[in-house]
Amino acid sequence: RELIRRYFALIQERTGKPFPQDPFEQLMGSVGAVFGSWMNERAIIYRRKYKIPDEWGTAVNVQSMVFGNMGDDCATGVAFTRDPATGEDIFYGEYLVNAQGEDVVAGVRTPKPVAEMQHDPMFAGTYKQLEKVRQTLEKKFGDVQDFEFTVERKKLYMLQTRNGKRTALAYVKIAHDMVQQKLMTPDHAIRSADPDALSQLLAPIFDRRAYEAAGKEGRLLTSGLPAGPGAATGQLVFTAAKAEQLAAGGAKVVLARVETSPEDLRGMIAAEGILTSRGGVSSHAALVARQMGKVCVAGAGAIQIDYARGTLSCGGRTLREGDAISINGSTGEVFAGAIQTADSELKQVLVAGTMKPEDSEVYQYYAFIMKLADKHRTLGLRTNADTPEQVRQAIAFGAEGIGLARTEHMFFEGDRIDAMREMILAESVEARRDALAKLLPYQREDFEGIFRALEGRPATIRFLDPPLHEFVPHDDQAQADLARKLGIPVERVRARVAALHEFNPMLGHRGCRLGISFPEISEMQARAVFEAAAKVQADGIKVRPEIMIPLVGFKKELDNQVDIVHRVAATVQQETGQKIKYLVGTMIEIPRGALTAAEIAETAQFFSFGTNDLTQTCLGMSRDDMGSFLQRYTDEGIFKANPFASIDVSGVGRLMEIAVEKGR
Amino acid sequence: RELIRRYFALIQERTGKPFPQDPFEQLMGSVGAVFGSWMNERAIIYRRKYKIPDEWGTAVNVQSMVFGNMGDDCATGVAFTRDPATGEDIFYGEYLVNAQGEDVVAGVRTPKPVAEMQHDPMFAGTYKQLEKVRQTLEKKFGDVQDFEFTVERKKLYMLQTRNGKRTALAYVKIAHDMVQQKLMTPDHAIRSADPDALSQLLAPIFDRRAYEAAGKEGRLLTSGLPAGPGAATGQLVFTAAKAEQLAAGGAKVVLARVETSPEDLRGMIAAEGILTSRGGVSSHAALVARQMGKVCVAGAGAIQIDYARGTLSCGGRTLREGDAISINGSTGEVFAGAIQTADSELKQVLVAGTMKPEDSEVYQYYAFIMKLADKHRTLGLRTNADTPEQVRQAIAFGAEGIGLARTEHMFFEGDRIDAMREMILAESVEARRDALAKLLPYQREDFEGIFRALEGRPATIRFLDPPLHEFVPHDDQAQADLARKLGIPVERVRARVAALHEFNPMLGHRGCRLGISFPEISEMQARAVFEAAAKVQADGIKVRPEIMIPLVGFKKELDNQVDIVHRVAATVQQETGQKIKYLVGTMIEIPRGALTAAEIAETAQFFSFGTNDLTQTCLGMSRDDMGSFLQRYTDEGIFKANPFASIDVSGVGRLMEIAVEKGR
Repeated sequence: RELIRRYFALIQERTGKPFPQDPFEQLMGSVGAVFGSWMNERAIIYRRKYKIPDEWGTAVNVQSMVFGNMGDDCATGVAFTRDPATGEDIFYGEYLVNAQGEDVVAGVRTPKPVAEMQHDPMFAGTYKQLEKVRQTLEKKFGDVQDFEFTVERKKLYMLQTRNGKRTALAYVKIAHDMVQQKLMTPDHAIRSADPDALSQLLAPIFDRRAYEAAGKEGRLLTSGLPAGPGAATGQLVFTAAKAEQLAAGGAKVVLARVETSPEDLRGMIAAEGILTSRGGVSSHAALVARQMGKVCVAGAGAIQIDYARGTLSCGGRTLREGDAISINGSTGEVFAGAIQTADSELKQVLVAGTMKPEDSEVYQYYAFIMKLADKHRTLGLRTNADTPEQVRQAIAFGAEGIGLARTEHMFFEGDRIDAMREMILAESVEARRDALAKLLPYQREDFEGIFRALEGRPATIRFLDPPLHEFVPHDDQAQADLARKLGIPVERVRARVAALHEFNPMLGHRGCRLGISFPEISEMQARAVFEAAAKVQADGIKVRPEIMIPLVGFKKELDNQVDIVHRVAATVQQETGQKIKYLVGTMIEIPRGALTAAEIAETAQFFSFGTNDLTQTCLGMSRDDMGSFLQRYTDEGIFKANPFASIDVSGVGRLMEIAVEKGR
Repeated sequence: RELIRRYFALIQERTGKPFPQDPFEQLMGSVGAVFGSWMNERAIIYRRKYKIPDEWGTAVNVQSMVFGNMGDDCATGVAFTRDPATGEDIFYGEYLVNAQGEDVVAGVRTPKPVAEMQHDPMFAGTYKQLEKVRQTLEKKFGDVQDFEFTVERKKLYMLQTRNGKRTALAYVKIAHDMVQQKLMTPDHAIRSADPDALSQLLAPIFDRRAYEAAGKEGRLLTSGLPAGPGAATGQLVFTAAKAEQLAAGGAKVVLARVETSPEDLRGMIAAEGILTSRGGVSSHAALVARQMGKVCVAGAGAIQIDYARGTLSCGGRTLREGDAISINGSTGEVFAGAIQTADSELKQVLVAGTMKPEDSEVYQYYAFIMKLADKHRTLGLRTNADTPEQVRQAIAFGAEGIGLARTEHMFFEGDRIDAMREMILAESVEARRDALAKLLPYQREDFEGIFRALEGRPATIRFLDPPLHEFVPHDDQAQADLARKLGIPVERVRARVAALHEFNPMLGHRGCRLGISFPEISEMQARAVFEAAAKVQADGIKVRPEIMIPLVGFKKELDNQVDIVHRVAATVQQETGQKIKYLVGTMIEIPRGALTAAEIAETAQFFSFGTNDLTQTCLGMSRDDMGSFLQRYTDEGIFKANPFASIDVSGVGRLMEIAVEKGR
């Protein structure tokens, strides 16, 4: 009653009006509060993360209330039909006797696992009902359900149900199991995947030896609830602000809170892992962590967190802010100090080969889903790769070829950069050819390695794209070194670097414009591709080079470069006696290319879309410079999502549509 | 015969084959030579200047030959039905007895004026025939004709006729006269105008006093043929290469040649004026000069040009390369030394008011044509203008309002730049507002002056567009000065300047992005516009401000800025009691703006096209950086014309078409 009196006083003070006694007025006030919640900061942050447009708005459902807090024959709970962290087929959830729903999710009281209900004489019957509900729900909805219930004077009421959020691990296991059990359609199994979340399966786990060592060294502090699987190690912080600050500086942090609240959202996003001393697996910390794929240990009750002193104590040991801490979100363990992390099982099976497929359950679930997805997909899948190593990794994960091999990356390694610089500083076609001749063997070897790693799969190879000034040194010392190396006056280096300066390099002398100005560069690149192809093919390995001319806006640009490619191809084929099948196409990455796609398609044997540059030019926004207004644009709702993270459908998408229509 | 023998030997030597004796083989060789001439350098330069696509190619007409070089009863000539330099209604042309057409245009022999024919007993009859032909041709073709004729044994043959190229002066006079004489349709009079050439009418003439003084000082060297009207003064040069070289450095040159040939074309383009000592008004020099609107004096036979010594002598006086020389292409006079030039009559009548309309024939012809054009045109015409002075000039020439008033230019003058810099360096909204308050009166005065000068005509005013770093000093000394002036540490200035640096400023924090980041800037600009409008309107002068928000790609950007404009407008109207009619629209200058024009048009009350930025983004080419490949792109035929000088129809034009369609 005292509490009620105080609330009444507070309402009077804050709103200048007494708490309304008319039920309808109360109802309207509540409805207004729900609508208003759409624009609070938490909702806005949430929407931004999940790219939900501001315009959608929210709805209000009005229904009669049941009470879980009318005595010890009342209870309330939150449950999942399966374990949303691991995907195991167990009844998973929590309940609190004599409480309302808010008490469970707020994490203020630590609730009991729902399984204990069956041993509680008061609720054993309810438990049986719930078990039935659990099966009915999965059958009815064809997916894991996350539902809330209240028991009012021993009578069970279901409050709501929805598809349960889950970790990526739980997703693959549940999809695998429920499809096998014929509870879920394969179609739903694929559609309900969160592709971003799947990358959680690649998240590191603890290195086995370091993990065992930590145990032996007695660094295990306690165990809480495993609320978000994976391994996290980092600096201990106690506030969201500190987490954000350190993470912005590149540090890895573990955020420890007594309990988390929506105000901590930004800090939780910034942290590697989240640790709470209170609250269960349905607490705010656990829910959010699971959804974001964050490692989380919740309700580690043995831990004492002292915000004022900035310490975390457990069993006589005390860690301070900034100390290393490690948590295992799959087991709930909390360790003092850092523990080295290791590759995920998927990587160990597919890439490193240090684990056998049959030893990894995760791998098997993953493979099951991928096979399912392969049945439905109509898109081919290629990887970005510039080295044989990258090619092998990508193929292990299912890539069917290379979609983009950037040849410029190949010019930075070791001595190559010297030859590249010599080429750029050359003052005649002959001198440029001499320098290019030095680059040819490097480039040929690169392509050879790539073709071998591809084992007959196609490779789209982009010719030199970035402006030449990216390859030259800009500070005095490096310029002097280069001049000495090349035996030319430093003034010449300086003058050439200055001449290469551009006001807007993104819109400057790059892409096919280089190959048109300096045809000998394209000649060298074509020669490297075809010589490598001929060599690998001679060894009995199929090669499918697809040369891509970048930044084409005019058909004649492409014609110019395609002529060179065909000419070199003919020469190399004659020299080697190898007949090579190849394609020459272009990347549509400036608006004019899209708008005149019909003409360009007369020459191009394929199109690729360069959505990064296409976005920069279509929006007139430099990705490197938008930092100064990105935040404002997001706050003002001008951007629904960062257009460089998620295609701008109305603008860039429209250009792509035009290009596809006209190109056919 | 000796000449023929030498030619035969030369042909044998160059081609390795004797001159063919089979007439058909000769014919095919000649046809081939004509086709081949399409790709010679002269033809290419010519096409580039007049934007004729390479693909068009040329045609060959085969017809039987008549000979003007079979004796003294033969002749050949080139004539215009009116004077192509002044437009006077006189029979204008030249002929050579016992010669072929090539001899007339090559300028090797100086031909006689066609009028002299009537006094020549041999050709008096031919002259009468020609006079008749002259009238027939003008009646038949409805325009001045440029025709060639040959007299073979007293019989007149017409070889070809075409509309005559003429100076802008001749154009307005001929159009005026022939429309009055009902020989030319008003429609043709307008269609046949070369809008670029009309700017010749604005070209300077000699300052009357300086011109008279030069005469009195005895600086008149000689008089040649007035072959390209106007006044030119500059450094004397004797080669096209030197003309190009000095002009590239910003010098004004007069090119003097014994005669010009197509090889001199580049030099002639670079020169202010052309002077030849040989050749008539149909010589190469005269033809080219007239067409290009170059000042030209041809066939000044008293002049001796010595290429080897680099001198030009006349009547005992000698000028050397680099000396000043002046030529009057309207009278044929050649002066030693510089003569100050003065405004054209058009400017004197319309802008300076130093000449009465009735005293200027040119003005009257010009006004006649403009009135004719006004009857037919459907487009409104507005000017670019940032100052009242510019507004007045433009109105004098017929502008119906301002199409683009760039407000940023207003921030560079005098003390304003200090307040602007203070605004940019401000660290809080309040400090920024304080600095903006200092800018407000300046900006208001600017607009007031513009509104008064417009006298009720509309003005499209663009809000701040360029990135802020264009306003801050970049060298150490200027930064130190600024820090002292503002009483802040120089480090702060330096840090802010560094923070404003952008990789691609064209695609950076500019246009409406500024007004969205710093709404107080747009507020100040809106306030300045409306306060000025209210003040001028209170004085009984109509105002029609049209505020243009730049660089809009998203409807919400425009919404954001339009809200500010409307809010400020409402406030100012309330404060001043003046009701102001205004529009708010946008400039379509990035592809996304064009592609989403339908949405943007919901908010915009008008569209303007910013084809400069639209070209940069559509083509992905920075105008400031394209110098490194422009030449190559032109040589390779990728650009038909510099896309920043002439709209790229397939790309940029298509975007504009989309914007117009969707915007409606």
